[in-house]
Amino acid sequence: MANLLKGKEVVDKLNDELLARSEKLAAAGNPPTLGILRLGERPDDMAYERGALKRAEKTGVTVKQFIFDENMSQDELISEIEKINKDNSIHGLLMFRPLPSHIDDEAVRNVLAPEKDVDGITDGSMAGVYSGEDKGFPPCTAEACIEILDHYGIDVKGKNVAVIGRSQVIGKPVSMMLIKKNATVTVCHTKTENMASICKDKDVIIAAAGHKGTVTADFLSPGQTVIDVAINFDDEGNMCGDVDFPAAEPVVDAITPVPGGVGAVTTSMLMKHVIEAAEKVGA
Amino acid sequence: MANLLKGKEVVDKLNDELLARSEKLAAAGNPPTLGILRLGERPDDMAYERGALKRAEKTGVTVKQFIFDENMSQDELISEIEKINKDNSIHGLLMFRPLPSHIDDEAVRNVLAPEKDVDGITDGSMAGVYSGEDKGFPPCTAEACIEILDHYGIDVKGKNVAVIGRSQVIGKPVSMMLIKKNATVTVCHTKTENMASICKDKDVIIAAAGHKGTVTADFLSPGQTVIDVAINFDDEGNMCGDVDFPAAEPVVDAITPVPGGVGAVTTSMLMKHVIEAAEKVGA
Repeated sequence: MANLLKGKEVVDKLNDELLARSEKLAAAGNPPTLGILRLGERPDDMAYERGALKRAEKTGVTVKQFIFDENMSQDELISEIEKINKDNSIHGLLMFRPLPSHIDDEAVRNVLAPEKDVDGITDGSMAGVYSGEDKGFPPCTAEACIEILDHYGIDVKGKNVAVIGRSQVIGKPVSMMLIKKNATVTVCHTKTENMASICKDKDVIIAAAGHKGTVTADFLSPGQTVIDVAINFDDEGNMCGDVDFPAAEPVVDAITPVPGGVGAVTTSMLMKHVIEAAEKVGA
Repeated sequence: MANLLKGKEVVDKLNDELLARSEKLAAAGNPPTLGILRLGERPDDMAYERGALKRAEKTGVTVKQFIFDENMSQDELISEIEKINKDNSIHGLLMFRPLPSHIDDEAVRNVLAPEKDVDGITDGSMAGVYSGEDKGFPPCTAEACIEILDHYGIDVKGKNVAVIGRSQVIGKPVSMMLIKKNATVTVCHTKTENMASICKDKDVIIAAAGHKGTVTADFLSPGQTVIDVAINFDDEGNMCGDVDFPAAEPVVDAITPVPGGVGAVTTSMLMKHVIEAAEKVGA
């Protein structure tokens, strides 16, 4: 029976710590404030937004919503981001992506002021994660994986870690963050051959493929820690991760549940970034 | 007896191709031009500079040298870079680093215009390598490894590659470039345990530790390709790489010699970038 690495335990501890920091900032006349910018009404975005609003309340973060029509022009969007850049009452911006196809993501995302880039989308934040320097912010989901490992006292130094997935929001940044923490990281992806045997002898598996059933029994061995980042749905419409949980749970040492694992921690990372950004302004 | 992956063969082919492109640019009144900026007289910098001057001549690239006292102030240096940014006759800048300790590297390197960042030192270039997007330029040494693999027809798709080293100039960028080429990459470093056994079952080893004798017989097995990036010196003062060449050569399938391997190709990558930058201006 694996130890369940529940996100709630991580979140509860973080909520208390973050709320105290928010209250201190608010008392000093600088309440930490997150801007949320959304084009259109995509269900995924709106679900994440609802979660963020709740988590903001718990952590003392004020939210200002900027909701626009999905047909908004690129120039109008850039102008709105520039206004947010100049607005000293907003410390960080979450902008939902992918943006509608008539907008050039590359042209828009770097308009955001680096110090407000709490979701890690600008070149400056990317260069910070990639180089391991303390600049900008890492993507929240990648950082949530690290936060869970830290919370449960799983030290990756010198450990062999397989990361499944090479996306810019999870696979690559979590690999860089693990390398910075002195793990030996193997980055697997759709073109990897013999992925099962590669994963089987690793100490830690970070599963971020985004396909249910990616990680089966033959990937797993006793003593492993498995962090399941994905949010998929099974044929009955139930939420599930990349890992075959019933196969993994009796074998491995520790595993995050889906739901209730990484996803639960992600919005706390966002609030932490907003508070950090506000603290930097106040400092 | 391993196949020797000599840099000269790669360079000879590149020289011809690059010279033709330079001549075309020059004929159009836009001769590709590299600025070289150096503070002080560090022997390593000057050795690289001599090599670059020779390679520039072979490939039809004009060089303008900017040589300053090592005590130059940070403000003066920034002002010189800004002048180079505005000078349309210069397409790329090689600035020797590390800079003297009184200068903040972070503050200086991002002053350079991204389109002139032929040595891949700005955040924009780093974000490009990290994200796999075609923006900026990768560090020349990392690209030289890829160029050698490509030249000798060694396809890394689906292959298992160990990269030894996690530096910003070689280990990390070459890992990202290999992942983009669909290799399954394991990044090893000083905190890696059992590095020999990790490397032994890989198809390709990129050795960029910078310590002679890092890669010994127990890292190696038949069929492997070994790219030795390091430039070290043995006790007799002879140049050598990270790999125990006499131990490797009878075992592996292919290996780069040191000297005469990766190092020889690096300056060709620099010239290629300058010519690409000039072509973009001309386009």
